[in-house]
Amino acid sequence: MLIGMPAFAPMADAVRLPPQTTVNRLHAMFEARFQTFEDANQRAASPARVAALRAELARRGLDGFVVPRADRHQGEYAPADEERLTWITGFTGSAGIAIVLTASAVIFVDGRYVLQVRDQVDTSLFAVEHLVDNPPDKWLGANLPAGARLGYDPWLHTADDAERLAKACGAAGATLVPVGENPLDAVWTDRPLPPLGPVTVRPEELAGESSADKLARVQAEIAKLKADALIVSDPHNVAWTFNIRGSDVAHTPLPLSFAHVPREGRASLFIDARKLSNETRDYLETLGDVREPAAFEDALTALGAAKANVRVDSATAADAISRLIGTAGGTVVRGIDPITQLKAVKNAAEIDGMRAAHLRDGAAVANFLAWFDREAPTGTLTEIDAVAALETFRRETGQLKEVSFPTISGAGPNGAIVHYRVTRATNRKIAPNELFLLDSGAQYEDGTTDITRTIAVGTPTAEMRDRFTRVLKGHIAIARAVFPEGATGAQLDSFARRFLWDAGIDFDHGTGHGVGSYLSVHEGPASISKRGTTAALKRGMILSNEPGYYKTGAFGIRIENLELVTAATIEAAEKPMNAFETLTLAPIDRRVIEPGLMTADEIAWLDAYHARVAQALGPLVAADTRAWLEAATKPLQ
Amino acid sequence: MLIGMPAFAPMADAVRLPPQTTVNRLHAMFEARFQTFEDANQRAASPARVAALRAELARRGLDGFVVPRADRHQGEYAPADEERLTWITGFTGSAGIAIVLTASAVIFVDGRYVLQVRDQVDTSLFAVEHLVDNPPDKWLGANLPAGARLGYDPWLHTADDAERLAKACGAAGATLVPVGENPLDAVWTDRPLPPLGPVTVRPEELAGESSADKLARVQAEIAKLKADALIVSDPHNVAWTFNIRGSDVAHTPLPLSFAHVPREGRASLFIDARKLSNETRDYLETLGDVREPAAFEDALTALGAAKANVRVDSATAADAISRLIGTAGGTVVRGIDPITQLKAVKNAAEIDGMRAAHLRDGAAVANFLAWFDREAPTGTLTEIDAVAALETFRRETGQLKEVSFPTISGAGPNGAIVHYRVTRATNRKIAPNELFLLDSGAQYEDGTTDITRTIAVGTPTAEMRDRFTRVLKGHIAIARAVFPEGATGAQLDSFARRFLWDAGIDFDHGTGHGVGSYLSVHEGPASISKRGTTAALKRGMILSNEPGYYKTGAFGIRIENLELVTAATIEAAEKPMNAFETLTLAPIDRRVIEPGLMTADEIAWLDAYHARVAQALGPLVAADTRAWLEAATKPLQ
Repeated sequence: MLIGMPAFAPMADAVRLPPQTTVNRLHAMFEARFQTFEDANQRAASPARVAALRAELARRGLDGFVVPRADRHQGEYAPADEERLTWITGFTGSAGIAIVLTASAVIFVDGRYVLQVRDQVDTSLFAVEHLVDNPPDKWLGANLPAGARLGYDPWLHTADDAERLAKACGAAGATLVPVGENPLDAVWTDRPLPPLGPVTVRPEELAGESSADKLARVQAEIAKLKADALIVSDPHNVAWTFNIRGSDVAHTPLPLSFAHVPREGRASLFIDARKLSNETRDYLETLGDVREPAAFEDALTALGAAKANVRVDSATAADAISRLIGTAGGTVVRGIDPITQLKAVKNAAEIDGMRAAHLRDGAAVANFLAWFDREAPTGTLTEIDAVAALETFRRETGQLKEVSFPTISGAGPNGAIVHYRVTRATNRKIAPNELFLLDSGAQYEDGTTDITRTIAVGTPTAEMRDRFTRVLKGHIAIARAVFPEGATGAQLDSFARRFLWDAGIDFDHGTGHGVGSYLSVHEGPASISKRGTTAALKRGMILSNEPGYYKTGAFGIRIENLELVTAATIEAAEKPMNAFETLTLAPIDRRVIEPGLMTADEIAWLDAYHARVAQALGPLVAADTRAWLEAATKPLQ
Repeated sequence: MLIGMPAFAPMADAVRLPPQTTVNRLHAMFEARFQTFEDANQRAASPARVAALRAELARRGLDGFVVPRADRHQGEYAPADEERLTWITGFTGSAGIAIVLTASAVIFVDGRYVLQVRDQVDTSLFAVEHLVDNPPDKWLGANLPAGARLGYDPWLHTADDAERLAKACGAAGATLVPVGENPLDAVWTDRPLPPLGPVTVRPEELAGESSADKLARVQAEIAKLKADALIVSDPHNVAWTFNIRGSDVAHTPLPLSFAHVPREGRASLFIDARKLSNETRDYLETLGDVREPAAFEDALTALGAAKANVRVDSATAADAISRLIGTAGGTVVRGIDPITQLKAVKNAAEIDGMRAAHLRDGAAVANFLAWFDREAPTGTLTEIDAVAALETFRRETGQLKEVSFPTISGAGPNGAIVHYRVTRATNRKIAPNELFLLDSGAQYEDGTTDITRTIAVGTPTAEMRDRFTRVLKGHIAIARAVFPEGATGAQLDSFARRFLWDAGIDFDHGTGHGVGSYLSVHEGPASISKRGTTAALKRGMILSNEPGYYKTGAFGIRIENLELVTAATIEAAEKPMNAFETLTLAPIDRRVIEPGLMTADEIAWLDAYHARVAQALGPLVAADTRAWLEAATKPLQ
């Protein structure tokens, strides 16, 4: 009640769904185009591949080689030609690293992938180790022979990672050796070509700021850092700076590319020219020099030769970047890329776009939820059916570009697997009297969404209701939080956990992450997490609010909305205060709430949120969904 | 209600106050023996002293000298012979540093001391700079001539501090030079002698663990650190390890001393033998070698010569310690002294002692509060009267050893000065319709106390009631918090601020600090603070819970109890959970509470706390206080 809620103007024309979007239809009409449900399993080829790699290493005088799951940008999603870890081991998880020595080989995965790795990887070829409990540096100390030369590709490791590996090799009396050409690539005969996703220019009415103005702000930041230049190694930051989008990897519309921004003068963009139309190229050349990726190494060497002081991003810049600058005589200063901070603060046009995207997405989600409530009680729906239906409702907006990540669709016990991805092998019927957890998002040209709802099928147990209500109370505590300018997400994280702690339970992930504007659904530098990010929550940042609870083998609960950091309007405030405005618009399942556990303030928040959802989405959906929506958003008591 | 509260057994015999402790008495009977109210002002001597120091520097070929406010242990309270900063500048604040160059001199103080420094220091001799905004390293860069040799005493700076100073000198083209004999000491002709406070052995029934057992645990920690030895530079840690107490400095019963604990074999304690009785000496010699402080440097050199890997405390170890070990060939690893972690977790005997101390202290505080409520409405009491009366009531327990810090006694606007210390110059009448803030503590042989109460005189305004109630709600949120084993105080800090944030206000200090067992009232490593301490809150730790609010020029509010970290008893908890047990026993002023702002749970907590206070203290006080106590602890509504 202390927080000013902005006047709400539904963009009805832009958002209204086509008339065919009705809940009443056949399953066969649904299709998921943006994610697959296949289990990758390339185990059969592994022995020959490992043998070929070992022969190549022998030719080069190396006793081993490190194969991380990484591309040259340390990206969350890597293109197919960078999936070396999968090619050599068969493992498809999102985090892992392998080391192939002459007589032994090992793959490291974290707790999430302990089961999957044994399904996918030939354990007679690769020992399996825990990435956290027995990490590569520890393993190298015990397994690398003194005098050995361990190769690594400096384009696939950050400088920090390479230093850690070098230290471990040194402790074992061995040497870490950077390779020029990657030896795995030399034997990967059927390697896919790099992606050539066409690049589009983001219209300025969506970007809200010209690229020329952004470049000027970036250069001011470079001056503040007393650096001569910035190397932009994160393609998200390249995309933001130049107002371009691409389609080189799944789920995030980024063009793989590097950039060099000098403190003064013209920037350089290193990008494959085949991705650019003449029009896009002309646009980019007004901003800087457009150069081929092959020229990037020479540009780094030239910076070094000019004795430049160069800022590189410690999180995404490859060790090779620091080496090329440093070897040529330049000074490398590792730290956060200042663009990461600029990009996180959305301007008015980006915020408007995010609001429009959430209105559109909310209508699609409401259609899905109405359909789900009608179909699920039959007990025939599966997790994959839900993914396909949700994607279809989103696609029927006519504006869906992609899903912003593979949907997490977990029924019953699968909902308790935090990073669950449904495959045909794991696909589960959504059974009555279970909870169904659905975490999904969309990429629209005006914005990126990310929403989780936990839905009751049939009658939830008292335990489910208790847990769901505690998660909801934590969610509301974040949504209603008021906090001073300069506060970090770490200072808010416990608000989401308090009601779980009171019951002796918790959840084992962060409460929230930053979200991009038609860019990555995971964006830094701010987060809501106990692990100390020092990044303040600034007005214009957008973060997820997603507390949960997971009972292994039984059920999972998560409630996620996106929140915009805004100024809080408080009478007689002594300092600038901030608060959240909730962007996500979709009902929260009232059937799993235990009203007796809620305070009057919490109920008031929920009822007001639901009234807002009904008012915003009602005009945008067909009659069957509207009827469902009215029931789903009724006041709690 | 989820938290098991231990059965409460008042130790009536040990605690009952002597019969003369009655509220009905004359002011003349009160006396403060443990703190003074004088303004130190030695400005007159400064020009001659600075000139003498400059002459001494010239003799030694130095162009300047750094004078920190520090002793050889980086202690909070330094003995008189270590008060070099006061001697040379006149400044008596608890934090500051001076630099004397050939032609200029400067003193750096933080925001708390901006006014005081101008009263105490001759600003024609010393420029005044802000310790945070324009710190010494920045100032040196602008003021130190290239080629200059700046001296510093490596016994008075940590290695980290010395490195920072050396870097600043290097950037200015100058050199930081460690001195052997301190040049200021050479010209400080009337320098006091070092203190020789007698050392006592802490009885094992109060310490709860023999020193031999503690030494074995310390040696196990040294082995875990893979170190050969630990240098104990913090006298608090020496006192804890050897079960000794002393009286070398104000307010904290520690004997100034160093120790060396090897991974195996006998420890060495470096302490002036004149502080030891034969009996104490015999006791200490059963535990290790007792050596003169003069032998400490040789011992460090010997460790270095033996190529030992030595752990030194990064917070308190002097740079000289690292230099002596390193120069002789040893390896120094800086980090937290493991004793700091062991000492923070109190054992059953220490906890029993703290409970007994709080019962005794609570009775004395109740006597004070009853007396204050009777006397204050006359409008004749001053801040100093309150300090003297409170100390007298505590002394009448017959067991007061010291006050644990100089009492903060702030009436009206003085209450808004967070680190206020009353002097005869600032002493203020406690006027009707103002708030009075009183933050004080006691040292008893069985425990250390620290309590803040904010008391209404006359009728508080609506604003005072609103602010007081928000502070109280934050205090209660901490007191009632339940949190997982492993959580840090940083994860709880915002619970104390939330209700203030809702009103656009905050307080500018931490929520809580660790407290020792008949040792320092400020003890690490844990705290409740947004600034990331990574130390988990472990069962047996004792922390203050002291949110506040300060309206400059008007009033200050703080409510402080000490809290013991205990196991929380929660049915069906999935993980070990902790909670706080409140140790402090004294009424919280109900007249300043706005009940309409409190939830039913908060009122229940307050009423239960007050019932406990009345039950515990009632039998220990005379009839007049008991009658007051009954009224002061009535249920809120």
